Amino acid sequence: MTQDKRISIEETMARIGRPDPVVAEQVQALLDNKTKPRGSLGRLEALAVQYAAIRRQARPEPPCKAIVVMGADHGVADEGVSAYPAEVTGQMLRNFAAGGAAINVLARQVGAELVVVDMGVRTPLAGVDRVRDGRIGPGTANFTRGPAMTRVQTIAALSTGIRLAGELAASGVSLLGIGEMGIGNSTAASAITAALLGLPPGEVVGRGTGIDDDGLRRKIAAVERGLAVNTPDRNDPFDVLTKVGGFEIAGLAGVVLGAAAARVPVMCDGFIASAAALVAVRRCPSALGFLIGGHRSVEPGHARLMQALQVKPLLDLDLRLGEGTGAALAMPLVDAAVRVLAEMATFTSAGVSDSGR
Amino acid sequence: MTQDKRISIEETMARIGRPDPVVAEQVQALLDNKTKPRGSLGRLEALAVQYAAIRRQARPEPPCKAIVVMGADHGVADEGVSAYPAEVTGQMLRNFAAGGAAINVLARQVGAELVVVDMGVRTPLAGVDRVRDGRIGPGTANFTRGPAMTRVQTIAALSTGIRLAGELAASGVSLLGIGEMGIGNSTAASAITAALLGLPPGEVVGRGTGIDDDGLRRKIAAVERGLAVNTPDRNDPFDVLTKVGGFEIAGLAGVVLGAAAARVPVMCDGFIASAAALVAVRRCPSALGFLIGGHRSVEPGHARLMQALQVKPLLDLDLRLGEGTGAALAMPLVDAAVRVLAEMATFTSAGVSDSGR
Repeated sequence: MTQDKRISIEETMARIGRPDPVVAEQVQALLDNKTKPRGSLGRLEALAVQYAAIRRQARPEPPCKAIVVMGADHGVADEGVSAYPAEVTGQMLRNFAAGGAAINVLARQVGAELVVVDMGVRTPLAGVDRVRDGRIGPGTANFTRGPAMTRVQTIAALSTGIRLAGELAASGVSLLGIGEMGIGNSTAASAITAALLGLPPGEVVGRGTGIDDDGLRRKIAAVERGLAVNTPDRNDPFDVLTKVGGFEIAGLAGVVLGAAAARVPVMCDGFIASAAALVAVRRCPSALGFLIGGHRSVEPGHARLMQALQVKPLLDLDLRLGEGTGAALAMPLVDAAVRVLAEMATFTSAGVSDSGR
Repeated sequence: MTQDKRISIEETMARIGRPDPVVAEQVQALLDNKTKPRGSLGRLEALAVQYAAIRRQARPEPPCKAIVVMGADHGVADEGVSAYPAEVTGQMLRNFAAGGAAINVLARQVGAELVVVDMGVRTPLAGVDRVRDGRIGPGTANFTRGPAMTRVQTIAALSTGIRLAGELAASGVSLLGIGEMGIGNSTAASAITAALLGLPPGEVVGRGTGIDDDGLRRKIAAVERGLAVNTPDRNDPFDVLTKVGGFEIAGLAGVVLGAAAARVPVMCDGFIASAAALVAVRRCPSALGFLIGGHRSVEPGHARLMQALQVKPLLDLDLRLGEGTGAALAMPLVDAAVRVLAEMATFTSAGVSDSGR
């Protein structure tokens, strides 16, 4: 990454507007004249309004979809906070490249392009096609002993995400899912959430991919130590990211900012992707209007985080996998919302009596 | 409908088996070896197991989908229990035939064949293609003054549903959604639910397509009168159907029984379709294993009903439309479950380290 290609994060945030309120009103009026009781399509109607207002089109086409999955390793994995060894991060990125993971199956099903980015696994993936190189380093440092990243690394990861989102938007993508892979990253997401929301770690830490009771205690202790050792400044979300975050989480925060700046809605996945979105929104509140909640994670921190963002996930299917799987499964609901808007008859055109309300 | 074509309801119910427990175990073992933490795909895994066990195939193809929407009129609509006039039932069936309703849009999106059946609207739909004739009569009688149907009508409607499900199963359909249209039918569904579950009408009656406070009071009063006048026998679900049900509700109860007998899973829609499923399951408990909960309705009776069936709907999107829209939106989750089973790599094939648990 050369200096002249570096994107100004400040400039990107300044470009983030808000969903168009005039289009929102037009779309709700269109929906109200469709052959159904007013509001009876519930959240699909709200989705149609949000999508159209973001895209500034009262009659948008069904979205062109992509899912960005960023992977990186975490020094805090050394604390025994995961049921899986750290080498699984790289192995799973290879699995994504080969097309055999859950997110590959689900992205294919919903017609979303899958973009896999190595933001910094421990051992570089040599000779693997279809994984983009966004490496910031060979995994973060163990945040129980000091900051996970340097501020320079955080800015580089954010910039990578912003640039990627801009590139996808320019290629026509109009709905962007975010997902992640990184052994130890639910610990980092817990630390970010606890720091930004001012919550005790015990209230946000969960079992991630499935640790036992001892592991859960180690995980809570690791987050407590990380916050005590690094004292992240909750008024500076990028400081929180630097101290207790991760390369892929910073990259996804950048994707959220870059997508919002390009008027592309972002479909959130579970806890870790949502922690990235929280960082983006705390730093730049106008990004919130561009977020769609995909799936409600079973992680306790996710509910707190979604509550803080006032975003209600569309799905609640007891998933706890990440990878963008929850985002992928929720994407067809946006298709449905847009198609309802485009294809349904009106009371007049169909000769159906309206209730007059 | 000639006598020799009449299907024995008793014989159909006797053919209903149970999902295959051996296949269920095989499928869970297959899922446990996929490259993801055990159980981390949550309800998708349960769906894969249920679908495969019903179909008796450890490696099923993605489902071939159809949605049956049955429409009929209700005498109880004369009590002012709906925000819409009764002629809307027939108008909406015409709209279904023309392809302009919400269910048309959503069925197209998910690749489901839409089968529309006139089970008895007030004014016959003359010259409308693509609506099947299942007419039992010109709407039910007003159940606040006597039984909605005769027992003979109930049996005829059930038989029509059974026959249709059998026909669709024979044509290769392997996932069947059920939906309905009928002004006044949330009042009938409320009466059925109150009768079968022994609940006071005030606990199950909701606003349907959107009645006001006065309408809600009239609706509760209508259900109370219907139950007082007809004293349906809650131990005879077909008696409940006869006294306070409707042609389309009886028809859909038949569809559930016919589908279960043919080992075709049934995706439930909202409150009214679920009331039909409740009748089927109360009469023939083994049908329960073939039901999948599609969408959680905002109607208070639906929650009580799903609780009684111990079925948890997959989606909760604040829909209150019926027509099978909730069933349609949930169908791609079955696709996803089956595809995960078929397409995901195993730990061994992908060279990913398992956690050993």
